[in-house]
Amino acid sequence: MRLGGARCEHLIRTSERGVLATVHPVRGVDAVPVCFVIDADRVAVPVDRIKPKTGGTLQRVRNLEHDRRAALLCDRWDGDDWSQLWWVRASLELTEGDQEHQVRTELEAALRQKYHHYVDQSFTKLLVFRITRLTGWSASASATEPA
Amino acid sequence: MRLGGARCEHLIRTSERGVLATVHPVRGVDAVPVCFVIDADRVAVPVDRIKPKTGGTLQRVRNLEHDRRAALLCDRWDGDDWSQLWWVRASLELTEGDQEHQVRTELEAALRQKYHHYVDQSFTKLLVFRITRLTGWSASASATEPA
Repeated sequence: MRLGGARCEHLIRTSERGVLATVHPVRGVDAVPVCFVIDADRVAVPVDRIKPKTGGTLQRVRNLEHDRRAALLCDRWDGDDWSQLWWVRASLELTEGDQEHQVRTELEAALRQKYHHYVDQSFTKLLVFRITRLTGWSASASATEPA
Repeated sequence: MRLGGARCEHLIRTSERGVLATVHPVRGVDAVPVCFVIDADRVAVPVDRIKPKTGGTLQRVRNLEHDRRAALLCDRWDGDDWSQLWWVRASLELTEGDQEHQVRTELEAALRQKYHHYVDQSFTKLLVFRITRLTGWSASASATEPA
């Protein structure tokens, strides 16, 4: 069944990790798991210095330079129990240019609060998106928070 | 670190659920969690009759009619322990036309073996893709199977 806006917002806010899908000029789409925070109608996805990178500019960043549209998917998968499945998808658009200093500072603080790994860490880059659409689905009316 | 082809294949084969990203004509990308099986260089994603649908043709199917390219992402997220993170992504292209009867029968049998929910079930549709590229990343050399 379709989830209402408030339920979608609650479920995506309480999710730890999401999948960021971006537009790839040749392959059509790319997808990668990401950490993120939500603040009002904004989503911030950091490029961190902790998880080891292969080097160079990340493909997700190159994709977004080429096309600002993206999607963030959060879901619950409980193995055998399909009654608790749900997913929420935020359609996104990368915001133009650099963020105001205060906005960036607030989003970085929210990331450090959500993920203790980021305490005392600086970020290589902060991708800030505007949510353009929020939709969700659940297998039952009793779908609960991420396990 | 980048994962080799054999490791990618093992991890994606032993994953229960993936995220299917497709090209959307307006939003750029869509993403949705899916059940799937892999057989050689093919991926089959069923449209089943179990999980309740909102009605009409699913957006993922309409997207694929418009653009055959897609991606399937599988990953491991262990909450606080970031040392065990990994992801594998298969870039896909929907195969042309209907599958030969035998191929379809084999893929449906593999789905029923992987997901006991599908025993005695027929599928509304079977999306069959060819894998065009397989890439993966892990936080450490010891990345293990999905939890």
